[in-house]
Amino acid sequence: MSATRDDAFLGGRLTLRQPARGYRAGADAVMLAAACPAQPGQRVLELGCGAGVALFCLGARVRGLSLTGLERQPALADLARHNAAATGTSARIISGDLSAMPPELRAQSFDHVIANPPFFAAGTPAPDAARAAARHEDTPLADWIDAGLRRLAPSGTLTLIHRAEALGRILGAVEGRAGGIAVLPVTSRHGHPAGRVIVAARKGARAPLRLLSPFILHEKPAHDRDAEDLTPAAQAVLRHAAAINLELSRFG
Amino acid sequence: MSATRDDAFLGGRLTLRQPARGYRAGADAVMLAAACPAQPGQRVLELGCGAGVALFCLGARVRGLSLTGLERQPALADLARHNAAATGTSARIISGDLSAMPPELRAQSFDHVIANPPFFAAGTPAPDAARAAARHEDTPLADWIDAGLRRLAPSGTLTLIHRAEALGRILGAVEGRAGGIAVLPVTSRHGHPAGRVIVAARKGARAPLRLLSPFILHEKPAHDRDAEDLTPAAQAVLRHAAAINLELSRFG
Repeated sequence: MSATRDDAFLGGRLTLRQPARGYRAGADAVMLAAACPAQPGQRVLELGCGAGVALFCLGARVRGLSLTGLERQPALADLARHNAAATGTSARIISGDLSAMPPELRAQSFDHVIANPPFFAAGTPAPDAARAAARHEDTPLADWIDAGLRRLAPSGTLTLIHRAEALGRILGAVEGRAGGIAVLPVTSRHGHPAGRVIVAARKGARAPLRLLSPFILHEKPAHDRDAEDLTPAAQAVLRHAAAINLELSRFG
Repeated sequence: MSATRDDAFLGGRLTLRQPARGYRAGADAVMLAAACPAQPGQRVLELGCGAGVALFCLGARVRGLSLTGLERQPALADLARHNAAATGTSARIISGDLSAMPPELRAQSFDHVIANPPFFAAGTPAPDAARAAARHEDTPLADWIDAGLRRLAPSGTLTLIHRAEALGRILGAVEGRAGGIAVLPVTSRHGHPAGRVIVAARKGARAPLRLLSPFILHEKPAHDRDAEDLTPAAQAVLRHAAAINLELSRFG
C-alpha cells in the first residue's frame, strides 16, 4: 500500500487508516455496521472488509463481539490489522478470496455476516487503475451472497449494502435461501430515488419480505456545500453510532 | 354473478358495477391505471381485468386508447362488458385464462400491459369460498409476468401492482427480460413499510432499476375513521385521475 490517510468516523470516536487514493469506505460502511443486529458476544464476519471501517464501527457500537474480516487485497488487510491495533479492537483479519473461501473460515459459522460488495457508482467517470482493481465487480454479487449465507449459523443474519439498482439481483440471490428479508432504501434527500439499499435476511426464517420506509440522509432539498444538513436519523447513525433497527428479530 | 353494487371511482367521474360480495377492486386498481404511461391512441391490455376498474380508470384519464381486458371468470367479464357500455368506453373484454392465452390475443401485441394479480392480503381472516375462488394465487405470479411480457410490442411497458412482500418474486421474473425497471413503494402512512409495490419495466430497455420514493396514501400518523386524510398526491390520483409518473420514458 502506498500513501494512506487517517479518517474520522462516528463523530471522531474512531480514527481509521485508509488508502489515500482510490476507494475509501465512508457512510455506506457506517450504515452497514449500524444495520447489523449483532448482540454482545456474538460472532460477526465481514466479507471484503477492506481497511475494516464497517467492522470497527460495529465493534464500537456493540461491545464484546468476535470480529472476523476477510479481505482479498493484502495491503488492505494490513491496514485493517493496523486499524484493529490502533483502535484496541480485537479482530481477526484473514487475507483471502471469498470465491475460494479459506479453510479456516470454511470450518466456522457466524451469527452475522455483513458485506459492502464493490461497485462502480453510477455516473462516475472512468476510474483510475487502482480504483478499478479495488472496486471492479469481478466476483459476481450472487457469489458474495452465497458465500455469506454459507457461513451463517442457523438463525444467523446476512446484511448487505449496495447500489439500489442491484436490488433485483440481491433479492434473486437471497430469496428461497433466507427469510424475513428487510429492504431499506437509502436516499440522499426526501422524495429522491434510493441511491443505496440495505438488505438483511435471517437464515431459516419464513417471514415475508418487508419494504421499509427510506432512510434519508440529508434534510435540505438540494446540496449546500456550506452547511451540514444531515437528518436527525443520519446524524444518530453517522455521528453517534446509533443502530438502524430493521426489526429482524421481530419479523425474521 | 349474483348480487352486484355500483361503486364510484375518480371522485365520482366513473361509476362501475362490481360483485357485492368477495373481492372488489379499489385503490390498487386506480393506482395501477395511474401508473401506466399510455399515450392517446396506444393499445393497452389488462391481464385479469375483473370488472374492468383499472382499464376504465385508465380510459378516463387517457383518451383514444385501444383497451383490451382478459378475464377468466365469465361473470366478471360480463360485468366488465356492462361497465364498458355504461361508461361509453370502447373496450374489448375477452373471456379466457392467461395461462392458456386465447389465440386472438396471442396474435397481437400491445404498447402497454397492466395487471393487479390476485392475492390474499396478509393478516386477513380466512376468506369465504367465493373470495377464495376469485383471489387465490393459483396462477403463479411469474406466469402473469411472462404472459404480459410476451404480449408487449418492442419498447412496450409492463406495469404491475402487488403486495410489497412479492417484490423479490416480481423482480426475479422481470429482470433480464425487460429493463428500466421502476419500483414504487406504496405505503399507507409516512414512515410505515410499504403495503403494495408498483413495478414497471420497458421491453428492450437497458436502464438500471430505480427504487423510487414511496407513494404515501394518508397524511395522519394513525387511522381516523371520521376524517378523510388522503395526501395531496393520493387525492390527485384517486379523486382527480392524475397520473403517477414513473419516468419510464426518461429512464427506460
